Amino acid sequence: MVHSHKDSRRRIVELLRTAKPEAGVTVRGWIRTVRRGKEVSFLAVNDGSCFASLQVVADSAGPLAGVLEKLSTGACIVASGDLVESPASGQAVELKAETIDLLGEAGPDYPLQKKRHSFEFLRSIAHLRPRTNSFGAVFRVRSRLAFAVHRFFQERGFLYVQTPIITASDCEGAGELFRVTTLDADNPPRERGRVDFRRDFFGQRTGLTVSGQLEAELFATAFTDVYTFGPTFRAENSNTSRHAAEFWMIEPEMAFCDLAADCDLAEAFLRYLVKSVLEECADDLDFFDQRIERGLIDRLQALADARFERMSYTRAIELLQKSGQSFEFPVEWGCDLQSEHERWLTEQLVGGPVFVTDYPKEIKAFYMRQNDDGRTVAAMDLLVPRVGEIIGGSQREERLERLDARMAELGMDAAPLWWYRDIRRWGSCPHAGFGLGFERLLMYVTGMENIRDVIPFPRTPGHAEF
Amino acid sequence: MVHSHKDSRRRIVELLRTAKPEAGVTVRGWIRTVRRGKEVSFLAVNDGSCFASLQVVADSAGPLAGVLEKLSTGACIVASGDLVESPASGQAVELKAETIDLLGEAGPDYPLQKKRHSFEFLRSIAHLRPRTNSFGAVFRVRSRLAFAVHRFFQERGFLYVQTPIITASDCEGAGELFRVTTLDADNPPRERGRVDFRRDFFGQRTGLTVSGQLEAELFATAFTDVYTFGPTFRAENSNTSRHAAEFWMIEPEMAFCDLAADCDLAEAFLRYLVKSVLEECADDLDFFDQRIERGLIDRLQALADARFERMSYTRAIELLQKSGQSFEFPVEWGCDLQSEHERWLTEQLVGGPVFVTDYPKEIKAFYMRQNDDGRTVAAMDLLVPRVGEIIGGSQREERLERLDARMAELGMDAAPLWWYRDIRRWGSCPHAGFGLGFERLLMYVTGMENIRDVIPFPRTPGHAEF
Repeated sequence: MVHSHKDSRRRIVELLRTAKPEAGVTVRGWIRTVRRGKEVSFLAVNDGSCFASLQVVADSAGPLAGVLEKLSTGACIVASGDLVESPASGQAVELKAETIDLLGEAGPDYPLQKKRHSFEFLRSIAHLRPRTNSFGAVFRVRSRLAFAVHRFFQERGFLYVQTPIITASDCEGAGELFRVTTLDADNPPRERGRVDFRRDFFGQRTGLTVSGQLEAELFATAFTDVYTFGPTFRAENSNTSRHAAEFWMIEPEMAFCDLAADCDLAEAFLRYLVKSVLEECADDLDFFDQRIERGLIDRLQALADARFERMSYTRAIELLQKSGQSFEFPVEWGCDLQSEHERWLTEQLVGGPVFVTDYPKEIKAFYMRQNDDGRTVAAMDLLVPRVGEIIGGSQREERLERLDARMAELGMDAAPLWWYRDIRRWGSCPHAGFGLGFERLLMYVTGMENIRDVIPFPRTPGHAEF
Repeated sequence: MVHSHKDSRRRIVELLRTAKPEAGVTVRGWIRTVRRGKEVSFLAVNDGSCFASLQVVADSAGPLAGVLEKLSTGACIVASGDLVESPASGQAVELKAETIDLLGEAGPDYPLQKKRHSFEFLRSIAHLRPRTNSFGAVFRVRSRLAFAVHRFFQERGFLYVQTPIITASDCEGAGELFRVTTLDADNPPRERGRVDFRRDFFGQRTGLTVSGQLEAELFATAFTDVYTFGPTFRAENSNTSRHAAEFWMIEPEMAFCDLAADCDLAEAFLRYLVKSVLEECADDLDFFDQRIERGLIDRLQALADARFERMSYTRAIELLQKSGQSFEFPVEWGCDLQSEHERWLTEQLVGGPVFVTDYPKEIKAFYMRQNDDGRTVAAMDLLVPRVGEIIGGSQREERLERLDARMAELGMDAAPLWWYRDIRRWGSCPHAGFGLGFERLLMYVTGMENIRDVIPFPRTPGHAEF
């Protein structure tokens, strides 16, 4: 039985939000639960438009008895009847079914029978887990949040630039690159024994991007304010709950912007996103608060209202040294901040979000702007309670001679980055930007603890199913 | 000289739109042209926020004489002064500069001197071409249009699903796949002489996605209405003006939707996008209309107002055969429609957009829903004047036994698609969707004729620069 698009636009979210009795309503969705009574049967029907299911009520003994027999968890149905006030608590309306059509049944072998399933098990059926409460909520939040990202930047006149996925340059040497090739794997063309990438599709060795920042910088010197939002890749063979081989990154880049203004934007951005989720995904957040992380909503509200502190790396090191804490990793100027240090700074010392700025140049990337002290660069990390670093950014080195000197110091070959150097040669300007891992943000706002559980079909070592 | 973020938020688009005199205004941007007069000098300054540049006027002989000497096309400056009514035509206001700071000069070797450059030459400096009129306009339209895509779906309650880029499945066998690997290229592990992909990063052979449709279908059976918008890849070694190895695709997928409703949505979508561009990018479209394609705006307006016709493939073949036209490719039932046929149908016969539906199953993909006639499938292509096919879609085969039979007929191995088959096994429902190539759409709305000129950094055979 097929229905036309227009009359199928009645979504359960709308019926429950309006919550007004109405004659002749049709709903379509998947059965979450069936309760069969002698006189009346109750179906919870969910169409994914919101967390709640709609209760559909049918006479157990009437003309629907036949179809009711065949209904079970997971089945897909169309039900028509009157939307009436519900005597049950927790819902204003319910559908009194006059007709029910079974579109697709789900037998007793359906994997999502009504019981609790471990997230680990659900990962193995990632094609079905969107039909559960938890993953329905996760992916609705993901979608709303993605749109909020675009809205934030578009409202502020930022230009969205879709930077390339396949690239011949390795921005930060961050983790290993995935190689992209069309050469015959078994018998590639060779030159003096080694694979000859000049005969590959792009005429050179190429890989998957680890960041769109360098290309975003090019666009910022034409459009002033730009942002990227696209997939990014790391071929790190690490099986942690925070790493995936494929994830989405957001990278704004602003001309005429220094480190302080970069922090301003990062603060406004994070606040905006958290507020958007609090406002637009209230039901889903209620679920996370009750079932995933107690106190989640309070934590998010606290961040939205918080004062974002700022402190230099040098000051942070001093305070860590004076803290009297015994850290696993010793603290001294020049060291990278470990998770334990970041957590102490944001959770114990500040009790809220804090930007740490001006890191030693040795532990940061080549393109960061060199400060006048000769030993630090204009970098910033935003630390938040519970997760530590959530945003990292910097002002970029816009002075060609300083950039070249730093690349030479690091033994980097400047030639492949001729285009990056060119924008310092002609019409250069101070500029800055930052990066936010979209999945990290999702984990932060949902309380989900494994990155595999906030990505539709996660890619990790050994896993590329679906 | 570095400026803080907040006071740099005065963008030229805002000053020109408001067009009100105002004291003490600061603008930042890149010089497009310099005209030095004995008494007064004129700078055209562009910050990428809109097509127009702001005229900055300075006394040639006053205290700014020194800095004016150093200014040339491409230089980056900060100018402050009063925004005043402009005596010149074509602009309401201009900036009377009191101070000008040169942030980054551009010497005589700057490649974008004021003259016409060929698009081909500009492709070789894709890092600088966003600073030209043409590419400024292209990428502003690209950004606005991308946002309009999200807005259209989000306003209608569609869920945005980011489908995987790295995949182990080849959706349509459409063109060759790019392989993604971390194996040592020179000395990969081998098993019986052949490369052993079980020891690759994902434990199997993987490639870059050619479509997110199959995964979108999985999400549609949980959220009803979903869409993808992400990068897609084809390793076709073809050097045409319409093919790129990396491009962005939009793929909505709707549960409880048949082919007619699929056409309804495609029509509403295209109309919405074209109207959005007409409303939001008027200045950029004016430029395209004057310099790229005469009559562009009329053409777009005609599409926005057009009646979208519908006709079966069978009927289209009849009409083509009766047309009296001599086509290069002969027309008979069962043949694929060639560009010349599509153009005749939409341009000559209909004189506007037309959906051609219900194609022979032999020329369409395995997943399309089989019609009762046994020889056609519920597919549709939307043809528009000047380009031919712009959208392709179908109702999907939701009946497991029919899907399996078709796959067997085609000699396909059903095992790797176990997850795709599963959603027909449990809670199956009629569903449909379509795909729109984002760059094709951009070419359509800008009049640009080469796909390389609507992608920030295009990837084509032999080209992965920047």
